[in-house]
Amino acid sequence: MKSFIQYSADTHFPIQNLPYGIFKPKPDGMPRAGVAIGDFILDLSVLEDKGMLKNSSSEKNLFNRSSLNLFMSRDKNVWKEIRSRLQSLLDENNPELRDNKELRQEAFIPMSDAIMCKPVEIGDYTDFYSSREHATNVGIMFRGKENALMPNWLHLPVGYHGRSSSIVISGTDIIRPKGQMKPADAETPVFGASKLMDFELEMGFFIGKGNELGTSISVEEAEEHIFGMVIVNDWSARDIQAWEYVPLGPFLGKNFATSISPWVVTLDALEPFRCSGPKPEFEPLPYLRSKGNKAFDIKLDVFIEAHGWPEPYKVSHSNFKFLYWSMAQQLAHHTVNGCNIQTGDLLASGTISGDTKESRGSMLELTWRGAEPIKLPNGEERKFINDGDTVIMSAYCEGDGYKIGFGEVSGKILPAKQ
Amino acid sequence: MKSFIQYSADTHFPIQNLPYGIFKPKPDGMPRAGVAIGDFILDLSVLEDKGMLKNSSSEKNLFNRSSLNLFMSRDKNVWKEIRSRLQSLLDENNPELRDNKELRQEAFIPMSDAIMCKPVEIGDYTDFYSSREHATNVGIMFRGKENALMPNWLHLPVGYHGRSSSIVISGTDIIRPKGQMKPADAETPVFGASKLMDFELEMGFFIGKGNELGTSISVEEAEEHIFGMVIVNDWSARDIQAWEYVPLGPFLGKNFATSISPWVVTLDALEPFRCSGPKPEFEPLPYLRSKGNKAFDIKLDVFIEAHGWPEPYKVSHSNFKFLYWSMAQQLAHHTVNGCNIQTGDLLASGTISGDTKESRGSMLELTWRGAEPIKLPNGEERKFINDGDTVIMSAYCEGDGYKIGFGEVSGKILPAKQ
Repeated sequence: MKSFIQYSADTHFPIQNLPYGIFKPKPDGMPRAGVAIGDFILDLSVLEDKGMLKNSSSEKNLFNRSSLNLFMSRDKNVWKEIRSRLQSLLDENNPELRDNKELRQEAFIPMSDAIMCKPVEIGDYTDFYSSREHATNVGIMFRGKENALMPNWLHLPVGYHGRSSSIVISGTDIIRPKGQMKPADAETPVFGASKLMDFELEMGFFIGKGNELGTSISVEEAEEHIFGMVIVNDWSARDIQAWEYVPLGPFLGKNFATSISPWVVTLDALEPFRCSGPKPEFEPLPYLRSKGNKAFDIKLDVFIEAHGWPEPYKVSHSNFKFLYWSMAQQLAHHTVNGCNIQTGDLLASGTISGDTKESRGSMLELTWRGAEPIKLPNGEERKFINDGDTVIMSAYCEGDGYKIGFGEVSGKILPAKQ
Repeated sequence: MKSFIQYSADTHFPIQNLPYGIFKPKPDGMPRAGVAIGDFILDLSVLEDKGMLKNSSSEKNLFNRSSLNLFMSRDKNVWKEIRSRLQSLLDENNPELRDNKELRQEAFIPMSDAIMCKPVEIGDYTDFYSSREHATNVGIMFRGKENALMPNWLHLPVGYHGRSSSIVISGTDIIRPKGQMKPADAETPVFGASKLMDFELEMGFFIGKGNELGTSISVEEAEEHIFGMVIVNDWSARDIQAWEYVPLGPFLGKNFATSISPWVVTLDALEPFRCSGPKPEFEPLPYLRSKGNKAFDIKLDVFIEAHGWPEPYKVSHSNFKFLYWSMAQQLAHHTVNGCNIQTGDLLASGTISGDTKESRGSMLELTWRGAEPIKLPNGEERKFINDGDTVIMSAYCEGDGYKIGFGEVSGKILPAKQ
């Protein structure tokens, strides 16, 4: 499959991908939906307006909107119709769009001109804790080796509710949070700017169709409800978190900001990269058992960029397939009690760490709480994230001569407010 | 102040109250906003349509809507203008509405004919843990006397994020959740219907105006952001909760349902019942210090009703003023890290227990985890909530010859699905 749009073999956005996003063609433009193709965005509101995206949904305005929610709420066959139609329209052998110069002029916007917006109106946000290596690392640091992995961890995908209002799009600056923390040597807590600012390398998935309150989604049905995935940076202030988190879990140490990448990559695009995850320690309870491959081979990189550095420095290289619990298991668990999941809800993986040092997905783990700082080629070092640092996460699947990529999620840390 | 509408001295909804709700005048009617007065609802969309609710908001349709959010997002002076105008319109000495028979016919709906709807579109839901007695009781049961109150508890209002999608209006049946739990005598967890179904007696407040991400709301400013309050029943499946909650907090043990009462009582109506809360153990950090009375004297009752019982049986009597941390402190803490709070967000108190046995706000505490069952007059007993039981919570302030009430929040437990 080749497109008449030219792009390098290295692009995250070949014709095989076609992730959805919401963008403004210029700063004062109205947000609308598009797909990424090479260095361009194809404006779906233009194609829809011209009657070129016929599909079996009764709703005729799916894309001239400020979020993907309505499209995501449609049946999976509508998603497939649109994807297949777009691949056909972009195919090098199809003259329909290729040879319509005027329409191409109108429908393709250079990415560099566009402003990306939050793609989804997110209702509830849930964050899991599905990397065994991450849970073990953090457990050792917070509770000691004996109590590292809690007794429930291998039996269920541990998760908790996150804050939805502070989810921001890639490129949004992050202000270092202030809060209450208790230094190890202090008798009472102190107030101030967090000193232990961290990232968490995660991926998240968006719900397409939801379920009614009181009903459940089985492991086998789960993927029918998943529209697509993004990269998630679950910013964490470790000192605030450590003091506050007992017994009800993280709160202000996390809810000041969570960054997501702008392009939602569909499960259809990820299908060729399906693979098996880690072998389970033992069979879980029946409602969590699944057949077939539910993991995806998605390579993940984290870079730190700072003023004066020649280039961003890679601090972590991990993979989505390292996760012990799959998205299907997370969703089945989340709804087994009758909890209702709604279109646009975001479910994130938790930090994705592997079993090597370089695959750890947070500074907390990479520097072992600051005990082993990362040494940079220019002589600097990092224990946590400094003011002025930009954290960049990138994700892609490696196909045969092509990539299915997520682009990146980035965020710069600004000093705490006075 | 007296209204031309007749009601008993016992009503929760005298002219001094005027709580806001969303209702349908009949099953197939459109939802719209109203205030409760005696046994009637005054339809605000009718008054607004007739130009009788002039106010300084630029938006002219505040009440012919399916939620209160737009009205709540307006300046506090708009709230005050409307409240004062409604009190005047309902005053026994004002002929404007009193003597307009046709308009009265149109604008007053008997409560018994109306269907109450969820009053607010809730974005994020946060649940605090602000009763010292509750935290101590639960702490003793879950972790033993030594570790009952965590070291952070007296320094900050502990809270966590709840699930917004499963917040339901009073009267909604609650299906007993299924899930994973680990009986004390079992080696591995089992799956099934929760055996330890519980209520939690809470109150919650809705945010009027929010704050921008990266900014904070001080304790002194906090009440400017609070539109009003409701009763909250934070249903809890104790066996699911006990197994899952380490280390990230409650999840499926809570998120299957949270019930709220339909009428939002404004802080203006509660003003005469302002009082002091418990004396703090020591002064908190400056950002949590406040002047003046930030507690409210709101009496709280919990009843259980079951088939064949002559009447609902009162199992708990507590008071909102028992809370150690005030709403103002909760809101200041929630935003001190820059977290953004939005119009319609719900912040709940956590279970409100007092220092006597009968004032405990959950079955877990009332029966000490089932060890001391409640004996009912008919010879039955309850350790937790049975299928078919209805839990009813009621709240009111006692004025001089009048009450400012919240009505009630009720929910019946249905058997788990097969």
